[in-house]
Amino acid sequence: MRVLAVGDIIGKPGRKALKYVLRGYRDLVDLVIVNVENSAGGFGITKKVYEELKSMGVDFMTSGNHIWDKKEVYEFINSAPDLLRPANYPQGVPGRGYGIFEKKGVRFALINLMGRSFLDSNLENPFATFDKIYREVSQETPIIIVDFHAETTSEKWAFGIYADGRASLVYGTHTHVPTADQVILKGGTGYITDVGMSGCWYSVIGMKPNAVIERFIKGIPQKYEVEEKEDLVFNGILVDIDELSGKTLRIERLQQYIKKDQLAEVMV
Amino acid sequence: MRVLAVGDIIGKPGRKALKYVLRGYRDLVDLVIVNVENSAGGFGITKKVYEELKSMGVDFMTSGNHIWDKKEVYEFINSAPDLLRPANYPQGVPGRGYGIFEKKGVRFALINLMGRSFLDSNLENPFATFDKIYREVSQETPIIIVDFHAETTSEKWAFGIYADGRASLVYGTHTHVPTADQVILKGGTGYITDVGMSGCWYSVIGMKPNAVIERFIKGIPQKYEVEEKEDLVFNGILVDIDELSGKTLRIERLQQYIKKDQLAEVMV
Amino acid sequence: MRVLAVGDIIGKPGRKALKYVLRGYRDLVDLVIVNVENSAGGFGITKKVYEELKSMGVDFMTSGNHIWDKKEVYEFINSAPDLLRPANYPQGVPGRGYGIFEKKGVRFALINLMGRSFLDSNLENPFATFDKIYREVSQETPIIIVDFHAETTSEKWAFGIYADGRASLVYGTHTHVPTADQVILKGGTGYITDVGMSGCWYSVIGMKPNAVIERFIKGIPQKYEVEEKEDLVFNGILVDIDELSGKTLRIERLQQYIKKDQLAEVMV
Amino acid sequence: MRVLAVGDIIGKPGRKALKYVLRGYRDLVDLVIVNVENSAGGFGITKKVYEELKSMGVDFMTSGNHIWDKKEVYEFINSAPDLLRPANYPQGVPGRGYGIFEKKGVRFALINLMGRSFLDSNLENPFATFDKIYREVSQETPIIIVDFHAETTSEKWAFGIYADGRASLVYGTHTHVPTADQVILKGGTGYITDVGMSGCWYSVIGMKPNAVIERFIKGIPQKYEVEEKEDLVFNGILVDIDELSGKTLRIERLQQYIKKDQLAEVMV
Ligand SMILES: [Fe+2]
Ligand SMILES: [Fe+2]
Ligand SMILES: [Fe+2]
Ligand SMILES: [Fe+2]
Ligand SMILES: [Fe+2]
Ligand SMILES: [Fe+2]
Ligand SMILES: [Fe+2]
Ligand SMILES: [Fe+2]
Repeated sequence: MRVLAVGDIIGKPGRKALKYVLRGYRDLVDLVIVNVENSAGGFGITKKVYEELKSMGVDFMTSGNHIWDKKEVYEFINSAPDLLRPANYPQGVPGRGYGIFEKKGVRFALINLMGRSFLDSNLENPFATFDKIYREVSQETPIIIVDFHAETTSEKWAFGIYADGRASLVYGTHTHVPTADQVILKGGTGYITDVGMSGCWYSVIGMKPNAVIERFIKGIPQKYEVEEKEDLVFNGILVDIDELSGKTLRIERLQQYIKKDQLAEVMV
Repeated sequence: MRVLAVGDIIGKPGRKALKYVLRGYRDLVDLVIVNVENSAGGFGITKKVYEELKSMGVDFMTSGNHIWDKKEVYEFINSAPDLLRPANYPQGVPGRGYGIFEKKGVRFALINLMGRSFLDSNLENPFATFDKIYREVSQETPIIIVDFHAETTSEKWAFGIYADGRASLVYGTHTHVPTADQVILKGGTGYITDVGMSGCWYSVIGMKPNAVIERFIKGIPQKYEVEEKEDLVFNGILVDIDELSGKTLRIERLQQYIKKDQLAEVMV
Repeated sequence: MRVLAVGDIIGKPGRKALKYVLRGYRDLVDLVIVNVENSAGGFGITKKVYEELKSMGVDFMTSGNHIWDKKEVYEFINSAPDLLRPANYPQGVPGRGYGIFEKKGVRFALINLMGRSFLDSNLENPFATFDKIYREVSQETPIIIVDFHAETTSEKWAFGIYADGRASLVYGTHTHVPTADQVILKGGTGYITDVGMSGCWYSVIGMKPNAVIERFIKGIPQKYEVEEKEDLVFNGILVDIDELSGKTLRIERLQQYIKKDQLAEVMV
Repeated sequence: MRVLAVGDIIGKPGRKALKYVLRGYRDLVDLVIVNVENSAGGFGITKKVYEELKSMGVDFMTSGNHIWDKKEVYEFINSAPDLLRPANYPQGVPGRGYGIFEKKGVRFALINLMGRSFLDSNLENPFATFDKIYREVSQETPIIIVDFHAETTSEKWAFGIYADGRASLVYGTHTHVPTADQVILKGGTGYITDVGMSGCWYSVIGMKPNAVIERFIKGIPQKYEVEEKEDLVFNGILVDIDELSGKTLRIERLQQYIKKDQLAEVMV
């Protein structure tokens, strides 16, 4: 099973970069998973963006701390089984955090988790949550894919090694910068610390630089807006998972810099 | 001028990986800069390790928050002009944070800075510190190299764009994971969010996994020790800087996985 | 000189509590200083609230991180010399952080500073900023009053002892809970870690409890609103400062629980 | 039932202050509970200190994040049923977090919990942990006492109101500064945000000021040591709990400044 996993896509430029790449890769992969926490204007997701992403060929969506930014998500998340929020949100939180799904006749589990270090101390332990979900889903399928949305490299690597041999694939999201440590761990789990974002590359993690720089220089609050005027970058990973064993056979970064005029010719 | 810049080297395995790579690259590059904050047993640096690194061919050393971990550093840092600590430590802190140096007849400035977000709120503003140093060193040389030691991707990218067109090269350290966003910014500054660590690859950012995992699972303090029994990874960047303009012409990651038996044959 | 210093007043209930207390104390004290960062709807200050506070008899206003929440503050802060924001905001930030003022013929300095630990790493060092301001204002008056707006007790006590013998009074704000450690330090500086808030007492630091509790239980964002339906509490300190020496002679907490019907009879 | 609850006692001066006060109060109260996380040299507890405290008349001990600092605690915590560590440490952590105990024929539950905001994101949710323990212990006794060890005032007040009407008493520890908001909440729960520390008063939360100030000024690590040469302060609360209803009838702060020579005359 060939998976294209995509990290945080940032607003409209992120969606455009995704669309541009999917045009070429949609038919070459079996499964497309995208982290959508910043897909609508950089903050959260709307129903309209959700549908736009589905129509591009996104199969499943994961997310993270920003999933709640657009309030309308509360209205549709429960009726969108292909849109996950981190599974270690406590009981009573809308939406679901994992599921067993099927694509092209292959069953697999998709789990979304969130780290707590420097991110949100109010969540349940992601390691323990994984154990519990693993006990359930490993009865059903050897293919277990985890989007681990977290800030620190230590929590991500610790989780990767913790899940090594149990998960098929653990990929990080949230920092918006792709890491170059993609690897197959000793137990067969594909791992990367962060897939990175898709959006305008000359930006501060997808946002207009000036406001962010001003924040660091003056210390006063700023309004952050998605950078839209620059050329784009797409970041994702291509992963081949053995359907019998659930082991990752190959994990490879897919990075494309896309000039605005390239984009123009394919977008309608 | 061809620069090999290396991120956090973790204890003995980090030093071994560095030595292995320098054997091949030492003569191919003009300048070798290494971040040494974790070079001695994973925490800080000793005089002995400093000398070991010099004898391998390391020209200059940068560092970060862990530079103070081995107390003996206070004794030799003032007499080691090639060992920097972040320049935005307040007045009165031992050591120096930048300098104008010469190698093979080429003068260049090397600046070490540290971010504050999620790292240390007690430092001076790294953006303002850069401005001040820039005013001074840019009188002397167009070649200005910055090791920006920081935790968050937003502070690193914000700084990169802030320094774009002024610094020749801004490379990040501290997270111990190499990023795949090496690029030449619009103003000609070479940039990468993090060079990544050198040490045992199957580890939590260089340390034995079990203690770190235990910390995340149980919440009680653990003793962290350098992982030493696994194969190694080396992470660095190769950067060509134009000596007249100070612009980066090429920036490329250098990553090498090194098996323990490969190592054995070259180490004495 | 008798000073009534008041901490964070939370929205309308905070302003009501202040008005109620000032009715009795306004004529008994020489100087009224109020922290206004939460005075307008719990977040920031408006021109209208500023004028309401002036008309109650507030002489000077200090603030903290929330001062920027209502955007209109940018329009009037530069023309309101009696409204301070922390002095250790970097250069270029609107408003002023300290001043030498006169009341009833007595000249005094009022300084607003903000801590950085767990609060905002983008500010200048408050200790060093104090040194600089102290050198200037101590030429003019021995009476130096500091509102130190900070999160941690260690940064507050460290600053208090640091300024002991130089400041007349160092009082903390920001945590919204009054502390019971008011004391005259060995050098003559009056000190309290936090003056505490004024607002509805049965609340989470002035806000409606349910949303805050929900945040801790479910981890998802909540809209915080000022609690308005409960009885009130007023927290302040009464401080006598010797006008010749600038030493604090007496520091005492002033706390009043005010029932809603008591309030009704005095408010119009 | 009259309870004397004491917050963080800091090293030897804290133990002395406690001993001094207990001399007078031991026979006037039914139950003495002390937070011991800083009782041995400022960091953790040893068997010897544990026994010293028992011999002074301490009935039960609570703790917090620093309980693990002296490694020997792992050896005796499991055999010391009167020494609690926060109950929301995950499964597998040594020691116990709550218990049903009896004193003078009265049964009561004592629960130790720890907040997570700015303190430790690796713990279980203290609100949910309380619910679970409450369901169990409320079957056995209406008297339920909680030491809520936490950093932020918002987490503490949120918990207080959350437990209002269920817990008899919720008192905070950890910040080392006593708060002046002791109150009986609307449901009958006695509440205070922090009991405060006992130790040398002219100190930074019990420690020698110079090293802490140096940390804030220079940003480099410092060795923190218990301040021992100054006069002492004792902070505690006296709480009367109705044995039938479990409601708090009275909650009052007990604060005593103790001169070193006063101490001399009673200590042997
Ligand atoms: Fe994101
Ligand atoms: Fe995120
Ligand atoms: Fe490091
Ligand atoms: Fe570091
Ligand atoms: Fe406030
Ligand atoms: Fe504040
Ligand atoms: Fe403590
Ligand atoms: Fe503590």
